Amino acid sequence: MPRNALYAQSGGVTAVINTSACAVIQTARQHPEAIGKVFAARDGIVGALAEDLYDLDQESEDSIAALRYTPGGAFGSCRFDIGEIDTHRHQYERLIEVFKAHDIGYFFYNGGGGSMVTAHKVSRIGDELGYPLTTVGIPKTIDNDLAYTDNSPGFGSVAKYVATSVREASMDVASMAGTSTKVFILEVMGRHAGWLAAAAGLAAERPSDGPHILLFAEVPFDRERFLKRVDEVVDAYGYCVIVTSEGIKDEGGKLLSIMQDSPVYEWIQLGGVASKLAHLVKEHTGYKVHWALADYLQRSARHIASRTDVEQAYAVGKAAVEYALEGRHAVMPIIQRLCDDPYAWNLDVVELAQVADIERTLPAQYISEDGYHITDAARRYLAPLILGEDPPPFKDGLPRYPHLQKVLVAKKLAPFDVEL
Amino acid sequence: MPRNALYAQSGGVTAVINTSACAVIQTARQHPEAIGKVFAARDGIVGALAEDLYDLDQESEDSIAALRYTPGGAFGSCRFDIGEIDTHRHQYERLIEVFKAHDIGYFFYNGGGGSMVTAHKVSRIGDELGYPLTTVGIPKTIDNDLAYTDNSPGFGSVAKYVATSVREASMDVASMAGTSTKVFILEVMGRHAGWLAAAAGLAAERPSDGPHILLFAEVPFDRERFLKRVDEVVDAYGYCVIVTSEGIKDEGGKLLSIMQDSPVYEWIQLGGVASKLAHLVKEHTGYKVHWALADYLQRSARHIASRTDVEQAYAVGKAAVEYALEGRHAVMPIIQRLCDDPYAWNLDVVELAQVADIERTLPAQYISEDGYHITDAARRYLAPLILGEDPPPFKDGLPRYPHLQKVLVAKKLAPFDVEL
Repeated sequence: MPRNALYAQSGGVTAVINTSACAVIQTARQHPEAIGKVFAARDGIVGALAEDLYDLDQESEDSIAALRYTPGGAFGSCRFDIGEIDTHRHQYERLIEVFKAHDIGYFFYNGGGGSMVTAHKVSRIGDELGYPLTTVGIPKTIDNDLAYTDNSPGFGSVAKYVATSVREASMDVASMAGTSTKVFILEVMGRHAGWLAAAAGLAAERPSDGPHILLFAEVPFDRERFLKRVDEVVDAYGYCVIVTSEGIKDEGGKLLSIMQDSPVYEWIQLGGVASKLAHLVKEHTGYKVHWALADYLQRSARHIASRTDVEQAYAVGKAAVEYALEGRHAVMPIIQRLCDDPYAWNLDVVELAQVADIERTLPAQYISEDGYHITDAARRYLAPLILGEDPPPFKDGLPRYPHLQKVLVAKKLAPFDVEL
Repeated sequence: MPRNALYAQSGGVTAVINTSACAVIQTARQHPEAIGKVFAARDGIVGALAEDLYDLDQESEDSIAALRYTPGGAFGSCRFDIGEIDTHRHQYERLIEVFKAHDIGYFFYNGGGGSMVTAHKVSRIGDELGYPLTTVGIPKTIDNDLAYTDNSPGFGSVAKYVATSVREASMDVASMAGTSTKVFILEVMGRHAGWLAAAAGLAAERPSDGPHILLFAEVPFDRERFLKRVDEVVDAYGYCVIVTSEGIKDEGGKLLSIMQDSPVYEWIQLGGVASKLAHLVKEHTGYKVHWALADYLQRSARHIASRTDVEQAYAVGKAAVEYALEGRHAVMPIIQRLCDDPYAWNLDVVELAQVADIERTLPAQYISEDGYHITDAARRYLAPLILGEDPPPFKDGLPRYPHLQKVLVAKKLAPFDVEL
């Protein structure tokens, strides 16, 4: 007898998390012998607990197909994880109640490292509480910090956005540097890992091209050495473009963005580190400085997605369903690199228990000796991930991102307080 | 006898100012009977004074053709204007010296309102100082604040970037709002005019779509009313996306970005207004707030240029040369709208003396009654300007923006101190 499937999105969304959703739904629909209805939880695991389930039978084939190129998280995501089974047994019992009420036999959880911890916890309700459920995780994170997988779906598109944007902005700054702005700073995401700052490095083909200085979360920030380097770059090329990870720290391990030297810096908690660096550079060099904070623009920029990333995001979603149908449980598909150039990859699989909570930072051999740029090894790793374009359809000059119906199924259970 | 031409770029650059450069050079090359060599001044009028002239004969046809899709200002731009002829006669005499030394008979100045003042001044060296020169201005500004022309080349592409980015980011915020970020603020350019904030409004097709609140430079900022509106939007739609002009002012006409209530706000001079609004919203609502500052990313984003804008930028550059060949002097081509839908336009011409220093702000009928969004009239005006895509060629996953040789001609004159 076919059983129903539940798909949910978790953690910070990406430009291609819906591509994985599209793959899960399309693949599940090809297997009516095993999978009945497909539901999507509203706001990740929160919706699973609250019994807020979207009925995807209400969505047309075209709407589901359009998810392939729609940014954001179509069903809502969450920053919420369930507790340990010992201390939060009521959450697990509630999940079983909801799953039973809607005959859910498959659970697909699409998220990053933290979300895979939750997926792993959910996967145990079979063994621990006797409810038969096949759970498969689907990797996603723009931070590229998931262990085991060669790269994380979501990262390649942000990498392409960041490298494209900094290449373009560098040309702008270079034009103005003669009489105006000489220094430009772009802050990119990366609290613990410098993967996106590293990706920005792809924009520079020659030493004179921006970005000239990359500040990685992994490299302690040395203010004097940094200011000296800015001066050297301006002397050499007339301008200086800097890309900084949001999470750079000083030599004591203190985040620059939350330094509290003065009320000024307290403020910075909201704004991040680029404004602080801009202030520093302006104060010490007198150069006119501009800075940008890409924030959500970077991780939602589906219009400049990497085709490679889109293909991989689809592949892991499809594989997740296929693994489930093969009876594989508590696993997550990962991407395995076969060759840098020409780029070749395939999928492998890892146990959810392994993935959980291991965070992969930029390896030392990807960072240049002076700490301010990427090495050729980093270029070989990063370059394939941004290959290929996959623009969405445009209508009236803007990307056309259709809206789903998002019809919730009738609730069968009493309300449950999720205690967010 | 053919005489040489000098082209120069001025003011903040745009994603399509090089498209106009491409048009000038290609059109000039088609008229060897009238135009000999084409030079480009390094850093605008500064290079004309310094005798820093690039010899465009050193550039291949392909390189010149590639300017069509290359952002930034290929020859360098400047924020510098020459003085009045009465007080700065030495600058005019120097220009004549340089123009004579290189037999320059045509001068094309590509810039915004301020630059057209300079172009107008230069145009007078014929009448006032007896040097025969045909001067034609070429409009360019992302601010869309030039008078007479229906719109300014450069604006449409930033408008498309801003509307695309805010549509994408809105979908991201909508996904997270259940358990995390509820408010997102994007700061766009516009010190005196809200044209780009208005363009962002195109992203919203339904009231529930972001952006929900637009803050225009033209509308005095009322803190209490704004906070109330944020609350209403979050109550209605679960999240709130705000786009603000960098130049919003309070009811006393004071820029929010330079308010000096506290040391915290002094800091903001560098960062702009979004961080201040983010702080305000967070403090008063408790919502998690994210914000982005697009800065140079917006005006260099050639990868998402408007095809309409590219076509118009080319058209004004071509027309400038054609006007010059017809002997029209001290003029600037402008864009004239013939029909909103289907969009139709042609070129007209205006005297440089007229253009100078008139700044066009958002008309009242483009701003909704509550001051927080655009009207249908604004949509009719803005919509055609972002129509069509014109992506650059990509190589290795990134836009391929070739570099010119940029060979300076041998100097014939003594150095001149431009006194920047």
